[in-house]
Amino acid sequence: MRILWEHRYAQRTKRMKSSAIREMLKIAEHPDVISFAGGMPAPEVFPIEQFKKACIKVLDENGPASLQYGSTDGYLPLREMIARHSARYGMNVTPDNILPTSGSQQALDLIGKVFLNPGDNVVVESPTYIGALQAWRVYGANFLPVPIDSDGMVTDDLEGILRSGPKFIYALPNFQNPTGLTLTYERRLNLIELADRYGVPIIEDDPYGQLRYEGENLPALEVLDSQTKYHDESYAGNVIYLSTFSKTLAPGIRLAWVIAPPEVIHKLMLAKQSADLHTSTFNQIVAWEVAKDGFLNDHVKTIRKVYKERRDVMLDALEEHMPDGVNWTKPNGGLFLWVSVPDCLNCQNLFEDTIKEKVAFVPGSNFFTEGGGLNTMRLNFSNAKPEKINEGVARISRVVKDHLRKNGKS
Amino acid sequence: MRILWEHRYAQRTKRMKSSAIREMLKIAEHPDVISFAGGMPAPEVFPIEQFKKACIKVLDENGPASLQYGSTDGYLPLREMIARHSARYGMNVTPDNILPTSGSQQALDLIGKVFLNPGDNVVVESPTYIGALQAWRVYGANFLPVPIDSDGMVTDDLEGILRSGPKFIYALPNFQNPTGLTLTYERRLNLIELADRYGVPIIEDDPYGQLRYEGENLPALEVLDSQTKYHDESYAGNVIYLSTFSKTLAPGIRLAWVIAPPEVIHKLMLAKQSADLHTSTFNQIVAWEVAKDGFLNDHVKTIRKVYKERRDVMLDALEEHMPDGVNWTKPNGGLFLWVSVPDCLNCQNLFEDTIKEKVAFVPGSNFFTEGGGLNTMRLNFSNAKPEKINEGVARISRVVKDHLRKNGKS
Repeated sequence: MRILWEHRYAQRTKRMKSSAIREMLKIAEHPDVISFAGGMPAPEVFPIEQFKKACIKVLDENGPASLQYGSTDGYLPLREMIARHSARYGMNVTPDNILPTSGSQQALDLIGKVFLNPGDNVVVESPTYIGALQAWRVYGANFLPVPIDSDGMVTDDLEGILRSGPKFIYALPNFQNPTGLTLTYERRLNLIELADRYGVPIIEDDPYGQLRYEGENLPALEVLDSQTKYHDESYAGNVIYLSTFSKTLAPGIRLAWVIAPPEVIHKLMLAKQSADLHTSTFNQIVAWEVAKDGFLNDHVKTIRKVYKERRDVMLDALEEHMPDGVNWTKPNGGLFLWVSVPDCLNCQNLFEDTIKEKVAFVPGSNFFTEGGGLNTMRLNFSNAKPEKINEGVARISRVVKDHLRKNGKS
Repeated sequence: MRILWEHRYAQRTKRMKSSAIREMLKIAEHPDVISFAGGMPAPEVFPIEQFKKACIKVLDENGPASLQYGSTDGYLPLREMIARHSARYGMNVTPDNILPTSGSQQALDLIGKVFLNPGDNVVVESPTYIGALQAWRVYGANFLPVPIDSDGMVTDDLEGILRSGPKFIYALPNFQNPTGLTLTYERRLNLIELADRYGVPIIEDDPYGQLRYEGENLPALEVLDSQTKYHDESYAGNVIYLSTFSKTLAPGIRLAWVIAPPEVIHKLMLAKQSADLHTSTFNQIVAWEVAKDGFLNDHVKTIRKVYKERRDVMLDALEEHMPDGVNWTKPNGGLFLWVSVPDCLNCQNLFEDTIKEKVAFVPGSNFFTEGGGLNTMRLNFSNAKPEKINEGVARISRVVKDHLRKNGKS
């Protein structure tokens, strides 16, 4: 009897959808297209020579161990290095607080697996990172959106939502994906205070924290939380903090980490054991070899310089080409900015026309859990070269003007 | 308010347990210990030089792409290579039938995610691979064990179980983990015929298929299934087939693959997208570079030679040292053999004493879903060197004899 596969799938597969973004990215990845659609680092800044040296050294000196199975806990020297790195950002953590993961996406998935029962409420910024929505939807999460303004998540709107007893709050405080906005210091304190009062954990996703191009670093939620009175010296906070090597070394090695209290790390480790046994031993050791002697600090400076220039080129191009009535964020770091066109335009329709002009972005509506944002778009400024950025923004601007004209607004 | 984490975990975390094996492995990994406990390849056969050459070539010629994000589908040349490789084993598949995964453990996890609703029945060999039990328990699987004898899964016992409508059958037909036993040709046909009659898919896990040390290769269940009458030329079978580079290249790169009908691959790909975005681009390209020009074929011959010798040394040592009443399997391939001591002995107790003698194995009871197997143990023969194998078996044998004496049986 031929299997009718569609009758065999689990209930949860109804909640699995290919993100529209990833389908778009396939179009956007055509070499002729100027793409502001993905969230990709600039390949020009990948430390290829350092990787090569590290691969050779690791294979010469530690070959058998680097190619062998490893423990789910992760490579201890890597965790020690991450602990030292975290200390520079004010985090007081030990290797027992750290679990290396196969990219931050895996951390999001493991968090869903460990925390979410079907129907659980999760507070998210609106708009927010699609990968988190995808990961948690599979476990039956119900999303409670909190709006964002120029100061980041509107914490004044949070208290009513926290009364409903959500499982956790998901926040991207630095150069948020998709908006590029940063949660202010005051709002960080508000968020910590409210989460504390209602006993709701925070998932702090911080892939871009090191990529600040201007202004002062703001303390991580994890750090602010650890300063609240009831915490002792050991890390026993209310925040689960995520970061990654994807934006500072390279995403192709799929290496990120979670920082959390040891009991949470243990649960995540158990979930990881059944999910993929462990993250590639070779990649963990090579990343450690590349980064262990302070390389990352210098390298991040290079990345900041390159991305700051690209951001500035994009801001200048928007200023130069966009018609009146179009607004955009001016991020102090990260990879993205967020454009709002007049309400009468639909960025999904714009996308269909800009693609004909061989330029791509992501329509902002994709980042909202409950519709809306039709007049918004996310632009990535890290991946395209400066000369392409200006040209791409010029083309998008022409299409925006066309659409406004058709709407009789210009 | 300090978070009480234990009140926040999802229901499914109650089903997450660190496998006793992995806890044991931590003891067994002490360098003084002769370990037959893990399932690790011999580090002596890792193709370190080939990896080094491949890393250099990939970074020199394809550096930016190898370190960049990739698609969830996987690296196309790797999938093409796997399709060619599979053709040599009689499988008629295209890259659309293939999804690279972050080790076979991820494939097991994704299969659980895509197929299992809580309470679903899954048919497993008894004993069976613990990693599959761990992965599927999280999704609420209920296991229906089918015994194994020297011809592999006792397919005569299967029909009654299939009438209960299980979600799928999990089988390891070649050199099964943990027993080392192989499903005979006749039983393979029986299994396919029964699965076909009752419309139940088969998950065929084949990590060791290439590691045959004697006898003829038997056709994969996937191949036998594709020869049944209602299948057309395209791969539309009832079998989901899993294999891996962990035993033929190196486990530390975490690279395996699933072969399935395209619609199943699509579902697994969606599940993978939210689980880890994609498997390391770098590792996929490096593995392809190492293996693409036929290296694997020669290399597998080297591995077979080394492991066959170790198997033979272990069989000889068992013959030499073990007292009467102890029996073991004589596997034609793979990494493991299975020892049964007299019923009056408990291998968990034996383990506690052999560890004092600095030799480790896995008590067989761990591999059973519903208890039993107290008088069995799994011995790995791939990881320890021949001289250590003889010494380790001698020590275990002494402990067995001691325990028999204490039981008044000797």
